[in-house]
Amino acid sequence: MTSAPTSPARHGLFTSGEPVRSWTVSTAKPVRYEVGFAPGVLDPANPALARAGAPAGGPAPARRLLVVESTVDALYGERIRAYCAARGLDHAVHVLPAHERLKTMDAVFSVVEAMDRFGVSRRSEPVAAVGGGVLMDVVGLACSLYRRSTPYVRVPTTLIGLVDAGVGAKTGVNFGSYKNRLGSYHPAAQTLLDPAFLRTLDRRHVSNGAAEILKMALIKDGALFRLLERYGAVLIAGRFQGGAAREVLSRAVHGMLQELQGNLWEHDLERIVDYGHSFSPTLEMRALPELLHGEAVCLDMALTTVIAERRGLVRPLERRRVLATMRELGLPVWHRLCTPEVLGEALADTVRHRDGSQRLPLPLGIGRAVFVDDVTPDETAAAARVLRHHHEHAGEARDA
Amino acid sequence: MTSAPTSPARHGLFTSGEPVRSWTVSTAKPVRYEVGFAPGVLDPANPALARAGAPAGGPAPARRLLVVESTVDALYGERIRAYCAARGLDHAVHVLPAHERLKTMDAVFSVVEAMDRFGVSRRSEPVAAVGGGVLMDVVGLACSLYRRSTPYVRVPTTLIGLVDAGVGAKTGVNFGSYKNRLGSYHPAAQTLLDPAFLRTLDRRHVSNGAAEILKMALIKDGALFRLLERYGAVLIAGRFQGGAAREVLSRAVHGMLQELQGNLWEHDLERIVDYGHSFSPTLEMRALPELLHGEAVCLDMALTTVIAERRGLVRPLERRRVLATMRELGLPVWHRLCTPEVLGEALADTVRHRDGSQRLPLPLGIGRAVFVDDVTPDETAAAARVLRHHHEHAGEARDA
Repeated sequence: MTSAPTSPARHGLFTSGEPVRSWTVSTAKPVRYEVGFAPGVLDPANPALARAGAPAGGPAPARRLLVVESTVDALYGERIRAYCAARGLDHAVHVLPAHERLKTMDAVFSVVEAMDRFGVSRRSEPVAAVGGGVLMDVVGLACSLYRRSTPYVRVPTTLIGLVDAGVGAKTGVNFGSYKNRLGSYHPAAQTLLDPAFLRTLDRRHVSNGAAEILKMALIKDGALFRLLERYGAVLIAGRFQGGAAREVLSRAVHGMLQELQGNLWEHDLERIVDYGHSFSPTLEMRALPELLHGEAVCLDMALTTVIAERRGLVRPLERRRVLATMRELGLPVWHRLCTPEVLGEALADTVRHRDGSQRLPLPLGIGRAVFVDDVTPDETAAAARVLRHHHEHAGEARDA
Repeated sequence: MTSAPTSPARHGLFTSGEPVRSWTVSTAKPVRYEVGFAPGVLDPANPALARAGAPAGGPAPARRLLVVESTVDALYGERIRAYCAARGLDHAVHVLPAHERLKTMDAVFSVVEAMDRFGVSRRSEPVAAVGGGVLMDVVGLACSLYRRSTPYVRVPTTLIGLVDAGVGAKTGVNFGSYKNRLGSYHPAAQTLLDPAFLRTLDRRHVSNGAAEILKMALIKDGALFRLLERYGAVLIAGRFQGGAAREVLSRAVHGMLQELQGNLWEHDLERIVDYGHSFSPTLEMRALPELLHGEAVCLDMALTTVIAERRGLVRPLERRRVLATMRELGLPVWHRLCTPEVLGEALADTVRHRDGSQRLPLPLGIGRAVFVDDVTPDETAAAARVLRHHHEHAGEARDA
């Protein structure tokens, strides 16, 4: 019955007999992608970007459309064009401004139109997305939709891009007042990580990315937490260029991919990598453009750390170490939007997103997590009050 | 390394050693969906629609958003609402006009907004799409994008929906001047086929769907062709309600699913089900709203049948039988847009869509197909001239 040379157990068409009344199609879509460090990615002597997305052993793509975030283009545009020229690549650069309020389907359409103008072929000319998390999410969605899927590669230029948006499978844009309401699972064929881009990143955006590293540390990597606790302020000030930076980045990416690879399509809605992403989507959207993504994630982590402490899952000393590390990393622990009303609405939308249950990851000590379904509005409000006090008296008592 | 309870051969994270320089994520997305006949689908005694999309052995969804094409709503809206009321279903009906010129992202956004208003849960409240091919493609794309994928079910109400758009995995909308430029592979969890809807379908739209049945016959089912050859006019006039209709519908669906299940994501770009879809996308979009999808597909099949005859792949008698059957089914074999210029542009875009090669399916006799990459503009133009003559003298000489 099956016409493909695959095992019938995995690919089958089951029918209900003659005359056929019903059919069941059963198959599986193979997915494989690469994430790797590529220092000196814009050095013409480095073939990585020219070859990115090429099939193993196959030729490098002869043509390449690059979508470059406008700030990145101002800083690196000449080097990008010089790289393509030096490598003899037939290319075009589409410059796109990207920040949370421009993370819309209109931005996706702009990329689609650039793909039409360039005449991107369906399988053999992967588009390159060069920028931060928003740009990569937008280009990823455009490529996901274009001819029902076109390959692309990612060159993250921000810290959050390097450790989070650049290594997973998710694409997305905001719609209405909802964050990432529209999107897909469409990983880049290849992601090239070059931490040298962080040299030109402002301090606040470095802190923003550090929030996602801290997330990985808190839920699954105690050793990574100790590195952040010890070197956090130095890493931020030094833009993750030396010392412990490489180990911190590598551990963060490794932890993220470990969690994703068995659950890439989120069939299991209990995802520890959703830690910090239960209350934060609504906070981030309500505060636009005031809060960066990582800042909103940190507010959520501070809140759930205190909730966990009040449940006896995290000890007071651990809570103090976590909040102190957030401060060292330049991240907020409280915001005026952390009201019972907003936090209640935020959790209600997350319950819909997690199909009717909270499935709320809470920290268990430092480096592990558990899921709970029974966090009450009173608990959330009480935790927010604790953090408000902490926020208002942070200067007075570091160990509050 | 892997945290999921699956075989390491299928789900793996491969790394390049310590300190880790690169990672390869390797996994597979399981997909399973059902297509089945469901006569009397709007009869309150029939539980099929109320249960559609429920997990095997699980409870029927308690809530259901139905997206109903506006013509279908005028004809069947009361019965749909009465069905939901009788089954005690908490429901909402979103009425959407759908035809080729409304097959746009704006229509997708309208469905997304209805999903937000209804508060569709992420996994357990499959949306129902009730309508023809355009409606199902639009709703399918909306559900594909919503929270990066939300389940849906399909109730096709047109013949093309029953045998083609309703049974595959593709969703899509037109963008710019390109047909289905944006879309995804996101099959409905379940499709319910009730041919009784065809009783209220106008003759031209019945012919439109018959084109896709003829396609399956020409490329892989000689017995299906003989049924169409013998009963075609009767089937059209009788709206596929009796006699050979059930066998014809069943064979068409069966053939389609056989071809799809091993190649659902079109990793293999040589698809015999693309027969009739090489020149037709451009013809259909250029002629909007004059040509229906199946009419454009038939123009393409007539053209490629003559090209095949001129290459000795189809005998003259076979070509005459094919063209005669197209006429019996009420389908066109030539159109004024079949000029060398338009046909040349159409093939060029299809080559980009098939990643640089024509991969053009041509019929081999009746019931088989071959792929070629070397069709010339002269061949195409010559075939179009033959068909123009055939078209202009069809009344004079039936065996021209």
